[in-house]
Amino acid sequence: MDRLTRQLDFAAEAGRLKAVLRQTMLTEPARRENSAEHSWHLIVMAVALAEHAPPGTDIARVISMLALHDIVEVDAGDLFVYADEAEQQRQRAAEAAAAERIFALLPPDQAAVFRGLWDEFEERATPEARFARALDRLQPMLENRKAGGGTWRQHGIDAGQVLAKVTLIEDGSAELGSYARQLVEQAVRDGILAPAPADHT
Amino acid sequence: MDRLTRQLDFAAEAGRLKAVLRQTMLTEPARRENSAEHSWHLIVMAVALAEHAPPGTDIARVISMLALHDIVEVDAGDLFVYADEAEQQRQRAAEAAAAERIFALLPPDQAAVFRGLWDEFEERATPEARFARALDRLQPMLENRKAGGGTWRQHGIDAGQVLAKVTLIEDGSAELGSYARQLVEQAVRDGILAPAPADHT
Repeated sequence: MDRLTRQLDFAAEAGRLKAVLRQTMLTEPARRENSAEHSWHLIVMAVALAEHAPPGTDIARVISMLALHDIVEVDAGDLFVYADEAEQQRQRAAEAAAAERIFALLPPDQAAVFRGLWDEFEERATPEARFARALDRLQPMLENRKAGGGTWRQHGIDAGQVLAKVTLIEDGSAELGSYARQLVEQAVRDGILAPAPADHT
Repeated sequence: MDRLTRQLDFAAEAGRLKAVLRQTMLTEPARRENSAEHSWHLIVMAVALAEHAPPGTDIARVISMLALHDIVEVDAGDLFVYADEAEQQRQRAAEAAAAERIFALLPPDQAAVFRGLWDEFEERATPEARFARALDRLQPMLENRKAGGGTWRQHGIDAGQVLAKVTLIEDGSAELGSYARQLVEQAVRDGILAPAPADHT
């Protein structure tokens, strides 16, 4: 029973992610998305888009990574993807400390496996991690398109900054990368995303 | 590109589950849970509790089922688990119609696979479906315990009614079933769940 109790303690702690708000604006009803529902949406995308991962990608592993990837935000909160380098460094330290605390709720053997999945996602060293990261970058772009600009407008992000993130998508899936690139170009044409300044092109 | 577009249309439609509220009350902050975050929480539980499924259970299949099991609520809404038989029949019809519409957004071959997973979950005919259903029943009990009674109190549910649902948990996992039975007994002792009336025992 001790293993089960620890596993349920971990799951309860994970549930606190329902209270962590992201920048992404949802359209119906208009409100900020939380990290729990974001994580589920990525898993649905992984199941539906599995055929666009490179051949041999282990989708079950992708999904486990996606289920766990944001759990550290229970302590560290969510950082906007376009935050500056100093903020991102602080965030990485806070997330590493959170990973130490939260995965240690589990039985030790399982803590090591889950921490390994979290590290794998962060390091993007495997096809599974790169595909998972591609979905994590694509989903907010889809929400922004639906919201008529969303966080792009709200934070004054331009197409040059978005395209810098598109390379992460291309890195995980050629097809999703190509789709995202077209999405950005269309968003500029539709006037919901500012074009890249001349010095970015 | 047509397959990808259809898959993304499906994922966008699935995202509407973020607006479907369940009865379950969350504690921090106090509000009703939505079906998207509920689905993610079940997936985290499946990953963390996998060893309590019967030997040979395919956890990747369990997770795919959990990711998709509530998508029909985009059209049909969520029905309280203790609703009466007439309401449950109406709900089943509404969910079947929703499944027809929503899975048809996908490329036809994929629509058939996803519909098969959804039917499998509903029919509880495989170990994977029974384990997935066990998690789906256990999670609200955990939230109710944390909330000091939650929907049990709010709707005047007694231990006899809860124990009738515990059989569904036992059916998917002996260990989780035994845990749930103890949880109910403890909740009665703690005064957060009404005991079963004499004629139920």
